[in-house]
Amino acid sequence: MYTLLKKDKNTEARLGKIITSHGEVDTPNFMPVGTSASVKTLTPQDLKSVGTQIILSNAYHLLLRPGAQIIENAGGLHKFMNWDGPILTDSGGFQVFSLAQLRKIKDDGVEFQSHIDGSKYFITPESIIDFQKVLGSDIMMVLDECIPYPCEHDYAKIALKRTTDWARRSKEAFIFAKESTTRYLPCRQAGASRDTRYELFGIVQGGTYPDLRKQAVKELIDIGFDGYAIGGLSVGEPTELMYETLDVTVNLLPDDKTRYLMGVGTPQDIVEAVSRGIDIFDCVVPTRNGRNGTAFTTEGLVKIRNAKHKNDYSALDKNCDCECCKNYTRSYLNHLFNVNEILGLRLLSLHNVSFYATLMKNIRCSIEDGSFIDFKKSILDIYEKQPLKRDLSSI
Amino acid sequence: MYTLLKKDKNTEARLGKIITSHGEVDTPNFMPVGTSASVKTLTPQDLKSVGTQIILSNAYHLLLRPGAQIIENAGGLHKFMNWDGPILTDSGGFQVFSLAQLRKIKDDGVEFQSHIDGSKYFITPESIIDFQKVLGSDIMMVLDECIPYPCEHDYAKIALKRTTDWARRSKEAFIFAKESTTRYLPCRQAGASRDTRYELFGIVQGGTYPDLRKQAVKELIDIGFDGYAIGGLSVGEPTELMYETLDVTVNLLPDDKTRYLMGVGTPQDIVEAVSRGIDIFDCVVPTRNGRNGTAFTTEGLVKIRNAKHKNDYSALDKNCDCECCKNYTRSYLNHLFNVNEILGLRLLSLHNVSFYATLMKNIRCSIEDGSFIDFKKSILDIYEKQPLKRDLSSI
Repeated sequence: MYTLLKKDKNTEARLGKIITSHGEVDTPNFMPVGTSASVKTLTPQDLKSVGTQIILSNAYHLLLRPGAQIIENAGGLHKFMNWDGPILTDSGGFQVFSLAQLRKIKDDGVEFQSHIDGSKYFITPESIIDFQKVLGSDIMMVLDECIPYPCEHDYAKIALKRTTDWARRSKEAFIFAKESTTRYLPCRQAGASRDTRYELFGIVQGGTYPDLRKQAVKELIDIGFDGYAIGGLSVGEPTELMYETLDVTVNLLPDDKTRYLMGVGTPQDIVEAVSRGIDIFDCVVPTRNGRNGTAFTTEGLVKIRNAKHKNDYSALDKNCDCECCKNYTRSYLNHLFNVNEILGLRLLSLHNVSFYATLMKNIRCSIEDGSFIDFKKSILDIYEKQPLKRDLSSI
Repeated sequence: MYTLLKKDKNTEARLGKIITSHGEVDTPNFMPVGTSASVKTLTPQDLKSVGTQIILSNAYHLLLRPGAQIIENAGGLHKFMNWDGPILTDSGGFQVFSLAQLRKIKDDGVEFQSHIDGSKYFITPESIIDFQKVLGSDIMMVLDECIPYPCEHDYAKIALKRTTDWARRSKEAFIFAKESTTRYLPCRQAGASRDTRYELFGIVQGGTYPDLRKQAVKELIDIGFDGYAIGGLSVGEPTELMYETLDVTVNLLPDDKTRYLMGVGTPQDIVEAVSRGIDIFDCVVPTRNGRNGTAFTTEGLVKIRNAKHKNDYSALDKNCDCECCKNYTRSYLNHLFNVNEILGLRLLSLHNVSFYATLMKNIRCSIEDGSFIDFKKSILDIYEKQPLKRDLSSI
């Protein structure tokens, strides 16, 4: 349940709180991505040590491996992966449309082949709600159709109609799931969680077309969700077009519900989106870049493989107190990447997740004390000089 | 400095202690291998959390990457990698003879090309002592010539003569290093450590020939070392031949010095060698097998990729209290390996290093209370049924 605590005077930035049965999430906040029930290289204890409050996982990936039965037997995703904080699960719509093979979109649902082994699946809006109930997600997402960029208006409109239909069906399945201790679909046997404090978010699609985005918001609000996600951005469109699309969308969303910008982003994208009223984010940027040797620091991007770090015995980020920055030098981290030691991937991932957690905390503090507009400028000053290619998928 | 605390009544097993300037090592003990200044996937904090007292690193690998200057600038290997406990460094003799390319053995030293980039190196017994002083090793090893198995007696004898000559020169260089604050070799400038509590171990070679092994021990004792390593075993010879060679060697070694069996081994090899009087061990077996998905447990080997673990929600080892066993199930670990998540490699490595630390602690307790012979039998009962291919190199 979202509570709006404060609105920034100078921007649309909001301070808020989401209460879940696995704990509270202060917003604005960022969710590290644990695609396959693991935030890559890190343990839940690592995540807690740097202040992570909520993680994202992915129904598509978990459906393929390990599958519903194993997670159900474990008692849900929290127990399976030993993370006792809130989890938001993406429905997998994005992956069905970006990763899966031989996809057949029907009005009823989507038939596709696993990108891992080619085995066939048929998912529906209802089955994905059912699966997210098995996972025990604190925040579930509806199944949506993600269109690529660019995309013709005609097709974007057809896809949006389907997404809205699916959203309506998802909501019905969700209500059934909440009211019943059995499943919407009769295929599973074991008892589901009795805790009904989980939420369902709708996803605004419509490509980069303002008319379709507005239509999508209106239709989703008519159905009514616990929160609203903005999907289909950061998929290759120019940055300005992303912000423009955000501008025509965010302000139409209700004040008293969480607003989630999916798959975003870089520090500059985050402060821009927060200033437009976004509450939560997810992105593989911190972990994937960590594994590739790129660190986010308070002085900008650091490419740790660069030879200039060989003899640099200072911390990766002198303003950071994560385990990586407290205990190791840039010289040592450069060496670890140079000799392909896994510890390097782990330490940079930890630092980057720490950087993002601290970034969000500083954003919240600055909204609290009225200085967000200055904080935003300080982040843009550092990061706009160093463009980082956006990641297109949450694989 | 080694202190013999107790001898077992039923076997040759010894309880002892090595005091170094970075802390004490209770013996028998096992050194996880941190080849390139990292025990793969693990932090020093992880190692301490499972009771590791001493680690091994490798002069050959560190000479190639990152090289002497970077570690010297860092203030030595302990600071470079943030491990403040004792470090034993192998001289790299084994790697020069197993990994390096275009090797030319001269009486003065060895010329070889890096297996990484083909660049040329010339090392001598003196330069390797000098380098280990730069590293700040608590226990240094002499440069030796490692012969393969099988090897003709004639060649084994020639190699042994060279190894003994090199041992004598190593000792001279070591005495010079201890007595001088400058270096034996004039090529480096910066001041070296004033702490002179570091030790030098000789290495007994001689292949599987009893006459050469006996000769090697005699010659090394004549030179005089702080400890004696047995090298050139576990390089492909039959297990029985390894134990026979150990039998003719160990008892000739002085009681008041550390005895180190290099590159060994499996739990069964360790209890066999302890019962013959060995004090310390190193091997990549726990970490390499951890990364390959094989765990050592109190009930024997567990191959975590095996499908039977998919629905096993018990701990990897119910008798272990490491972070892996306390927090995760076999089902989850199976999933992590199944989807190639790095966290799986990390958790199994941690558990295996924990298993080895606990194995050594239990060996020490059993020597202390007189039950070692029973403890040895219990390990053999579990592990002799499950032969594990020995690793041939400490890469």
